[in-house]
Amino acid sequence: MDFGRRDLLLGSAALLLANSSAARAVPGRKLGYAIVGLGSYGLGVIIPQFVNCTHSRLAAVVSGDRAKATRVAAEHGLGAGAIYSYADFDRIRDNPDVDIVYVCLPNAMHAEFTIRAARAGKHVLCEKPMAVSVAECEAMIAACRAADRKLMIGYRCHFEAYNLEAVRLARSGAAGKIRYVRSEHGFVQHNPAAWRLKRALSGGGSLMDMGIYSLQAARYMTGEEPVAVTARESTDRRDPRFREVEDILDWTLEFPSGAIASCQSMYSAAQNHVLLMGDAGRIELEPATRYTGNHMWVGEDGREKAVTPPPGPRVTQFAGQLDHMSESVVAGREPIVSGEEGLRDMRIVEAIYRSVREGRTIRLG
Amino acid sequence: MDFGRRDLLLGSAALLLANSSAARAVPGRKLGYAIVGLGSYGLGVIIPQFVNCTHSRLAAVVSGDRAKATRVAAEHGLGAGAIYSYADFDRIRDNPDVDIVYVCLPNAMHAEFTIRAARAGKHVLCEKPMAVSVAECEAMIAACRAADRKLMIGYRCHFEAYNLEAVRLARSGAAGKIRYVRSEHGFVQHNPAAWRLKRALSGGGSLMDMGIYSLQAARYMTGEEPVAVTARESTDRRDPRFREVEDILDWTLEFPSGAIASCQSMYSAAQNHVLLMGDAGRIELEPATRYTGNHMWVGEDGREKAVTPPPGPRVTQFAGQLDHMSESVVAGREPIVSGEEGLRDMRIVEAIYRSVREGRTIRLG
Repeated sequence: MDFGRRDLLLGSAALLLANSSAARAVPGRKLGYAIVGLGSYGLGVIIPQFVNCTHSRLAAVVSGDRAKATRVAAEHGLGAGAIYSYADFDRIRDNPDVDIVYVCLPNAMHAEFTIRAARAGKHVLCEKPMAVSVAECEAMIAACRAADRKLMIGYRCHFEAYNLEAVRLARSGAAGKIRYVRSEHGFVQHNPAAWRLKRALSGGGSLMDMGIYSLQAARYMTGEEPVAVTARESTDRRDPRFREVEDILDWTLEFPSGAIASCQSMYSAAQNHVLLMGDAGRIELEPATRYTGNHMWVGEDGREKAVTPPPGPRVTQFAGQLDHMSESVVAGREPIVSGEEGLRDMRIVEAIYRSVREGRTIRLG
Repeated sequence: MDFGRRDLLLGSAALLLANSSAARAVPGRKLGYAIVGLGSYGLGVIIPQFVNCTHSRLAAVVSGDRAKATRVAAEHGLGAGAIYSYADFDRIRDNPDVDIVYVCLPNAMHAEFTIRAARAGKHVLCEKPMAVSVAECEAMIAACRAADRKLMIGYRCHFEAYNLEAVRLARSGAAGKIRYVRSEHGFVQHNPAAWRLKRALSGGGSLMDMGIYSLQAARYMTGEEPVAVTARESTDRRDPRFREVEDILDWTLEFPSGAIASCQSMYSAAQNHVLLMGDAGRIELEPATRYTGNHMWVGEDGREKAVTPPPGPRVTQFAGQLDHMSESVVAGREPIVSGEEGLRDMRIVEAIYRSVREGRTIRLG
C-alpha cells in the first residue's frame, strides 16, 4: 500500500469537501446501525445522536449486559430481535435491518468485532484508535476488503465545524508558511479501575486515548505525513493508576515541509489545545476537540481574533460522522477517514512507543 | 562543582526573596556601570533604565563606534574619560568610577570581555546566553573567582513581576503536582544580515537567543534540574537567513519529579508563551517574558482567571536586575543568577545540540 503524498492530498481535499452538499446526495431510506458496546460513548454519546441524522438510524444494540441492552432497545422502539450479546453477535448477518456495525468497545476488542462484522456482511464504523497494533489494523482492512464492505474510523473531528474551518484556513495560507504545530490533549484520570488503564483492554495509556486527537490534529492541520518521530514518556509507576499503561507521552513529528509538531497526551493534567503557527500568523483552537464548546482564534501573535465557523449542513459532528458513513455506503465511496487512515495513525503510534523504548528518533517509512 | 538539588533549592528560595526589602539594604552611593556594546539592547534598553534604579548609575560606555560613544556619553553627562573602545577597554582598571561592567555584546564576545573586565578588577553583569560554550563559561567563572569579583548573568525574568508571581504560585501548589511545562519563544527574524544569524558572533540560532528564555522558564517554573534532554531541529538551509544557524529547535526536558517540559525556540514564527500544568490546574503566561505587557492566567483548565502580580519594590525588571547586582556587590553576596546559573543553561544547550546531532536522548549530570 502507498500512503504517500498523493493519498495525503486527496485526503485533505476530501476533508474539505466532507461537509459540502455534493457529498450529501443520498437517496431513500435511513441506513440501520448496530451499536456494539453500551458504555459511556456508545450509549451516552452516539445513540442520542441519531435524532440529528438524516441518513442514519439505530437498528440494533450489542452488549454484554442483557438487562441494559433490553432497556436501551425498549427506549428506542427496538424489539428482542434487535438485541445481541457478544457471543451471539455473528447472528447479525441474518438481520437485514442492520447495514452498518459501529464498534464502540475497548480498543483491544476493535479488531475482533470489526472482522466479525465484515464476515457477517456488514459495513463497519470503528472507534479510534482503530486497534492496538498495525497487524490488527491490516487484518481489519483485509477482512473488510474481502467482504467488499466499507470501513470507517470514528475520527469525529473531521466532521467538527471548528476543526474543519481551521484546516480550511491553514490550507488557504491564513497563517503563512506553516512552521510549527502544538497539539496537546489530556485529562486527569481519577478512576484506577477504568478499562483505559488495563493494558489488555486499552493497548496503552494516554497515547491510545487522548493522544490520538493530538496525533490526528498534527496531521490534518499540516496536511502532511510525518517522516520522523522522537518521543519521551513520563509515568509514575508507583501510582496505582499507572501500573500497566503510560501517563504522559511527549512526541515530536517532523514533516517533509520542515514543519514540526510538538504533541502530548496525558492522564495527569487537563488540556485540550491545538495551535498552528506560520511565518504570518497563527490558528489556535482551545478547547480544540471537545464534543461541544470549542473555540478558535486566528491572526498574528498577540492580535488574534475569535473566529466562528460558518454554519454547516451537519447538526453535530457525531451526526455528520454517522451520515457520512451512510452516504459512503450508499454511494459506494471510501469514507474520508477509512481504515487506511486508522492504519496510518497506528504506524506512528507504534513508532512513538518504539522511540521511547530505544531513546532515539525513529524514521517513518 | 555540585549543581544538585541543594543548590537548586537555595536558588529557588533566593529567587523568591529577590524582590523582598531584606535584599535591598544597600547603603551609600550608587554603583557605577560601564555598558559594553551600544547596540539595540545596551543602548536601547539598558541605558534608559538607570533612571529607574536606586543603587545603579551609568559611569562609562564601551563601543567600537567612537562617534556613537561620544554622543551617548554627552547625552548622559559623561566626559571623554568615560569612553572606551574595545581595543583600549583594559584601561578601565584605572577608572574608579566604574564598579561593574555590563557586557551587552554578541554572544561570542561575552567570554573575552567578562574575563578582561574581571582582570581589570571590575564586577561583571553579562548578558545571556552567558557564552557560546561550557568551556567559555567555566573560564569566565574562574577569571571572576581569581579576581574576587562577582559575576551575574542578565536573566531579567528573575526580576519580572509576572514570572516571580508564577514561580511563587507554582511553589505554593496552586496547580497541584506539576506534571508538564510548555515553554515557547520565537519571532520572525526578517533581517538576513542580523549578527544573530552569523555563527561566529552568535554561537548558534534561535536556541542561543529566544531559546534561553524557554529553557530558563522550564527550570524556574518547575524548580528542578533536568536529568535528560531529547531534541529535534528544523531548518531550511536553502533560506539565506539560515545558512549558518538553526531556525526551529524543539526539545523535551525530563525532571526528577517526573515532570516534563516541552520547549521550543524559533526564528520563523512569533510566540512567547509559558504554561505550567499540574494535576489540579494550570499557570499560564502569554506573553510570558516580554519587556512589558506580560499576562498571566491561573486556575483549572477552561476556568482560568487573569492574575495581576502584587506591586513590588522594583520599578522595572531591568532596574531590578541592575540594582540586584549593585546590592550583591555591596553586600558581598552571590547574585541569584550567577555565573554558575549561566553555566547550567549552557550545559543543557550543549546537550540539546548533541541530541539533535546524534538523534537520541542525552542524559544530563
